[in-house]
Amino acid sequence: LQQKAHQTVLEINLNALVHNLNTFRKLLRAETKIMVMVKAFSYGSGDVEIAQLLQHQNVDYLAVAVADEGVQLRNAGITIPIVVMNPEHDSFQNIIDFNLEPNIYSFQLLQEFVKALEEFGLSNFPIHIKIDTGMNRLGLKTEKEVEEVITFIKNNKHLKVSSVFSHLAGSDEPELDDFTQEQFKRFADLSALIENSFPYKIDKHILNSAGIERFPQHQMNMVRLGIGLYGISQTGLALQQISTLKTTVSQVKTVNTNETVGYNRNGKIKQQSRVAVVPMGYADGINRRLGNGLGSAFVNGQEARIIGNICMDMLMLDITNLEVNPGDKVEIFGPNISISKVAQLLETIPYEILTGISQRVKRVYLQE
Amino acid sequence: LQQKAHQTVLEINLNALVHNLNTFRKLLRAETKIMVMVKAFSYGSGDVEIAQLLQHQNVDYLAVAVADEGVQLRNAGITIPIVVMNPEHDSFQNIIDFNLEPNIYSFQLLQEFVKALEEFGLSNFPIHIKIDTGMNRLGLKTEKEVEEVITFIKNNKHLKVSSVFSHLAGSDEPELDDFTQEQFKRFADLSALIENSFPYKIDKHILNSAGIERFPQHQMNMVRLGIGLYGISQTGLALQQISTLKTTVSQVKTVNTNETVGYNRNGKIKQQSRVAVVPMGYADGINRRLGNGLGSAFVNGQEARIIGNICMDMLMLDITNLEVNPGDKVEIFGPNISISKVAQLLETIPYEILTGISQRVKRVYLQE
Ligand SMILES: Cc1ncc(COP(=O)(O)O)c(CN[C@H](C)C(=O)O)c1O
Ligand SMILES: Cc1ncc(COP(=O)(O)O)c(CN[C@H](C)C(=O)O)c1O
Repeated sequence: LQQKAHQTVLEINLNALVHNLNTFRKLLRAETKIMVMVKAFSYGSGDVEIAQLLQHQNVDYLAVAVADEGVQLRNAGITIPIVVMNPEHDSFQNIIDFNLEPNIYSFQLLQEFVKALEEFGLSNFPIHIKIDTGMNRLGLKTEKEVEEVITFIKNNKHLKVSSVFSHLAGSDEPELDDFTQEQFKRFADLSALIENSFPYKIDKHILNSAGIERFPQHQMNMVRLGIGLYGISQTGLALQQISTLKTTVSQVKTVNTNETVGYNRNGKIKQQSRVAVVPMGYADGINRRLGNGLGSAFVNGQEARIIGNICMDMLMLDITNLEVNPGDKVEIFGPNISISKVAQLLETIPYEILTGISQRVKRVYLQE
Repeated sequence: LQQKAHQTVLEINLNALVHNLNTFRKLLRAETKIMVMVKAFSYGSGDVEIAQLLQHQNVDYLAVAVADEGVQLRNAGITIPIVVMNPEHDSFQNIIDFNLEPNIYSFQLLQEFVKALEEFGLSNFPIHIKIDTGMNRLGLKTEKEVEEVITFIKNNKHLKVSSVFSHLAGSDEPELDDFTQEQFKRFADLSALIENSFPYKIDKHILNSAGIERFPQHQMNMVRLGIGLYGISQTGLALQQISTLKTTVSQVKTVNTNETVGYNRNGKIKQQSRVAVVPMGYADGINRRLGNGLGSAFVNGQEARIIGNICMDMLMLDITNLEVNPGDKVEIFGPNISISKVAQLLETIPYEILTGISQRVKRVYLQE
């Protein structure tokens, strides 16, 4: 039996990803380090394959949200530094065993982590200190908090400060530029306290993707690249979309005027219609709100609206005026329906569309 | 280093699940077979552990959406019959190799599948024929389509019809009861054609969870249990909620009146406030729409609203009037915040909340 290629996949174009990486590199000085956010399954694009590619492309750091994600990468042979953004207490053992580097965002976390290092008799363990310059998310917020951390680390052989960093709350929003400038200023002040307290060199970084696009003068000696790598620019930078979510039609049927489509009879028709049943649903990450006419898919060169409620593993397309047969290709998003458009329909951001594609959807990688 | 229990988990109470199974069993005749829907990672509750429990509880069938899900269960040692609802062409090999049973929903699929069986020289392979009685989703819709399939199978040694089934579009909606009765009638007519065409016994089934609750007289000799097992009843049946999504507070901070919380400065405050940073976000499956005050979490005996935009891996809670410290437990849903309530806030169904919890969230199982 001829093994056919998978029909329902999220296809990731690795050439496009490299193009995007290089596009950002061109905005940066050659010596500026790049940390790439591969958290959340590389924004849905797959963890191991993306990390391998990035390691091959000589990025300097990878960043994950939780230690488990880092362990997965280490187990797959990734050797470059990996920062853990949310180092929960229960993950200290893994952080140490797998040579991951924690984001130290509070004095309490610092003390707890050092206790773990002491038990292991480890010294010079690399940490990254996060400064909260206005997000009110993780990070040291006041000068007092920063000083407390400095004093503690100075008297401690277990740690080495690899970098100090902060995160911008609205780097993509011109209306927030005054605030962004305040964040830069605050970061300069607080990071200098740390920098000047230790004899060795400490990296500094604050820019995310939109930050790199709009404020390259603040690249310092490292940046943290996320959504841009995955093909989304908020400033019109010439990035390539890397992902296509696609499947094939399972069945085509005629719907008569007295009939309805799908659950709760919500798929109403005005005239005799034809629908295509498509084997993807909300459990694959297609938001149920896209049902009942809001969303569409691209099939045989045309857009077809989703009719009725989206099911867990299926959805139905209104193909009344289209020539469609079982086996025909269906694009949920990709070259014809952009991720940004889907995000707009759902009044959310492309990030959520990308990270929402569930693990049931097989990722396949294209590379020339 | 003391290995602590995972802090961010979806906790599944297997005793509650067994309670729910038994509650449905009591509505059925002792000899009625039960097929349990474990598709979509058992509605988010985990595939292998749930399937093992169900096998131990002697359910008759498991059902998955796609063959890969079935392969996973077979690899974990599940031996009871598994039906594949969307047998895509590219999965025939796996269906055959792993002894899965396809849902045959069209004549075309039947022909293609038989061709695969011929190549393998297999006979009496069990299949399940789906009749479309009004969903306009997968299934044979017309008498002609049913007759065509019967004739083909009669002349074919490769197949054995294990069951014939259909699915209700609105079993939980009293306003649709007339339509549901039409579906029962249509199923009786079309399934009889199949039943009477073969010398052996063929199972028949049409009821899902709400169907079992509201129309037990139509149980025939099999039912297909889904959401009810996972603790959601649409009729007030005394089911137990099986899952709790929980984590712990990472950091607590004071927000001054001129400040904001989170991305885009969307988290506005009226007075000096306190926020708790919580390490779960939309990449874990917490819908971003719950941000900016719509959703809440339960912490230290009280509800705290989500303030600002939900981030990919974090969210912030307004704890201005609460006593909260790092490490304190946070419930996103569970005993204090029902899944149905979250679904209601999001104008969706509990199914989507459950299947939306991403694989990054570790599932842990409680059983006494
Ligand atoms: C600390 C940190 N640095 C860098 C990035 C990259 O941002 P971008 O993808 O916009 O380039 C993120 C992403 N954050 C996600 C989006 C979040 O926390 O919601 C981040 O949390
Ligand atoms: C064919 C079939 N049978 C039985 C069930 C169980 O339904 P319930 O969970 O309501 O008991 C489902 C679930 N369907 C999901 C919900 C869907 O396709 O959207 C189903 O597709």
